[in-house]
Amino acid sequence: MTTVGILGGGQLARMMALSGAPLGLRFRVLDNVADACAGQFAPMIVGDYTDQAALAEFAAQVDVATFDFENVPAESAQWLAERVPVFPKPRALAVAQDRLAEKTLFRELGIPVPDFADIASREALQAAVAELGTPCILKTRRLGYDGKGQFRIKTPAGVDAAWDALGAQAATVGLILEGFVHFQRELSVVAVRGRDGEFRAWPLTENWHVDGVLSASLAPASVDAAMQATALSHARKLAEALDYVGVFALELFCRDGELLANELAPRVHNSGHWTIEGSETSQFQNHLRAVLGLPLGDTRMVGLACMLNWIGAMPDANAVLREAGGHWHDYGKEPRAGRKVGHATLRADSAAELAAALARVGDALGREAQVAPVVARLA
Amino acid sequence: MTTVGILGGGQLARMMALSGAPLGLRFRVLDNVADACAGQFAPMIVGDYTDQAALAEFAAQVDVATFDFENVPAESAQWLAERVPVFPKPRALAVAQDRLAEKTLFRELGIPVPDFADIASREALQAAVAELGTPCILKTRRLGYDGKGQFRIKTPAGVDAAWDALGAQAATVGLILEGFVHFQRELSVVAVRGRDGEFRAWPLTENWHVDGVLSASLAPASVDAAMQATALSHARKLAEALDYVGVFALELFCRDGELLANELAPRVHNSGHWTIEGSETSQFQNHLRAVLGLPLGDTRMVGLACMLNWIGAMPDANAVLREAGGHWHDYGKEPRAGRKVGHATLRADSAAELAAALARVGDALGREAQVAPVVARLA
Ligand SMILES: Nc1ncnc2c1ncn2[C@@H]1O[C@H](COP(=O)(O)OP(=O)(O)O)[C@@H](O)[C@H]1O
Ligand SMILES: Nc1ncnc2c1ncn2[C@@H]1O[C@H](COP(=O)(O)OP(=O)(O)O)[C@@H](O)[C@H]1O
Ligand SMILES: [Mg+2]
Ligand SMILES: [Mg+2]
Repeated sequence: MTTVGILGGGQLARMMALSGAPLGLRFRVLDNVADACAGQFAPMIVGDYTDQAALAEFAAQVDVATFDFENVPAESAQWLAERVPVFPKPRALAVAQDRLAEKTLFRELGIPVPDFADIASREALQAAVAELGTPCILKTRRLGYDGKGQFRIKTPAGVDAAWDALGAQAATVGLILEGFVHFQRELSVVAVRGRDGEFRAWPLTENWHVDGVLSASLAPASVDAAMQATALSHARKLAEALDYVGVFALELFCRDGELLANELAPRVHNSGHWTIEGSETSQFQNHLRAVLGLPLGDTRMVGLACMLNWIGAMPDANAVLREAGGHWHDYGKEPRAGRKVGHATLRADSAAELAAALARVGDALGREAQVAPVVARLA
Repeated sequence: MTTVGILGGGQLARMMALSGAPLGLRFRVLDNVADACAGQFAPMIVGDYTDQAALAEFAAQVDVATFDFENVPAESAQWLAERVPVFPKPRALAVAQDRLAEKTLFRELGIPVPDFADIASREALQAAVAELGTPCILKTRRLGYDGKGQFRIKTPAGVDAAWDALGAQAATVGLILEGFVHFQRELSVVAVRGRDGEFRAWPLTENWHVDGVLSASLAPASVDAAMQATALSHARKLAEALDYVGVFALELFCRDGELLANELAPRVHNSGHWTIEGSETSQFQNHLRAVLGLPLGDTRMVGLACMLNWIGAMPDANAVLREAGGHWHDYGKEPRAGRKVGHATLRADSAAELAAALARVGDALGREAQVAPVVARLA
């Protein structure tokens, strides 16, 4: 009997436990809030990620550990890795936790990135804005997610407002300035690498964000074979450089046919949720297979799939459950503004069917705007 | 937040909880053994199905109740139904619990059945064997499962041995004698009926038993449209007669092109496990949708699927996980002779691919005999 420990008890841990149960696995989740939603299906330890006693209890109960939450402090991951196998390894996690280290590595590996600069002071910001031009985005190097910790600078006059908003964090989590990319599309590669180095990827996914938060994903993205190959090659290079084990996502901007790497998520990823129904093997099960050294599952798609994120509160399930290819995912969370509380996946055998189902769901839920860009892409 | 109570905490309850989690459901399981495998993923109450205190605790915690185990005493089901909605309803359960009532209903509905007779005494058995002829099978009316509570009578001289084996149970659970059916194939319809009467069925499944226990299932069964329609019509009639709500299986013998009804399982069924990966909606999720009054999910298949049962102990997972369409289900149970401890499902897009995968798995696991009849059918 193998027990898998998961640091973080959100929806990613929850879906991981649900998809790992058929492998005969048990789970133990560590989270700092008692009502973390993974706790509904896996025993939980409540404690801070930096709490040695909680970490020790956790380590004593698990055979191997992984993450639902990428921002576990590097020291905690390291402390744990000295006691139980931890995948992905703390070094890969550390790189992915820091936008500057991440983008530097992308560049070293020959993966194109937006322009960027490390920002330690107001003067440095001023100078970097002058060099990169506007618009540009000031971001915290660490701990940002779902568009949080970002400030857009539209004109050079915006420097002061940006510094006022984020400057205090230069000394704590660090800051990075990025040139604004006028992309036509956002794409992601969700991929998995085994303990033995085997590498597999799901087809490229196209993503739509609203206010910096993922709103919809469509797979497969309609890209040509060359772009698919380039994206996979970037993902593979990165995984190999980090000796990465498990599932990760590489977020890409597509501008004028060129791919620019935005960020690496060192975990199962929201843009891979469609793999639960839309692929032979889900990202959750493949992550566990990788972490445990089991053979990786097939990543081929079964038809086409679109995932719609539910933010803040769950809409009416029936609109989705009525659809032949409609699948509902309620994370069992309390509603709260801005919170990811669930998603739906629509699966279909043709683009026309998928577009029709999306249009019906958008209509029934009054969410025409959410489905519109996906429907347009499928036309 | 809806909590579904499940009477019985075996693998059926476990898979139901795993497939119901995405609907945002919580679960509560009642079982008389503390290590029932559903307890690994759902909170459990340990107690006997006849224990009023345990039932009361259970009733207080759930919004609706259903079964993983069909032999919950009718009085317990009734007691519960007076407190919370219970699906399927106690009456449907009562009929399915009794082979005599079940076969009598089949006959009343015009569904062909093997010859049968109620047996209350040794003399009655003698007379019935003379009338039905040999071979025939003496079975307990109630509480039999996986071939248990059955005795085959090969010649008239076997009557005494049969009575010695099962006669004492005539007064407790009752006995029924059935003519032995020299069938060419065993089939099952797994179907679902909603609270509003909506009826859906998965394609017919062919089943192979070894020592009375399911060994392998193949879907879709290769039958012509007329037989498919007949089987579905039997299932539908039955469901309507019982005002059935939820998933059930109707087991059929196919002899010389004719279908004879063997038994009704008033729950999700082992021959429907392939629906987890092989169908748009699994039997587990559709059972919950039915019980909760939600729209039923699509029952269409995605390719072909074969399920292999693991009895006694789990074989090596890698042989299955290596297959592109290989899916593993370890119920987290202790190994024990004769116990259903897990299953595997192989999914493929063509019969040839499925046959090849089965042959490889049979070979790798030294289970050529288990896969052989399925491979032969696919040829
Ligand atoms: N340099 C950029 N140019 C244009 N848009 C950007 C840029 N950086 C971020 N964005 C937009 O904001 C979203 C969230 O930013 P991201 O850096 O991925 O942070 P997070 O960690 O919050 O996902 C992106 O998916 C994209 O839509
Ligand atoms: N009347 C019969 N004729 C031939 N085989 C039978 C008959 N009854 C049962 N069997 C065989 O035994 C298996 C188990 O019997 P069944 O009545 O379905 O009991 P259980 O409740 O244990 O599944 C059947 O699937 C079939 O293979
Ligand atoms: Mg991002
Ligand atoms: Mg049977």
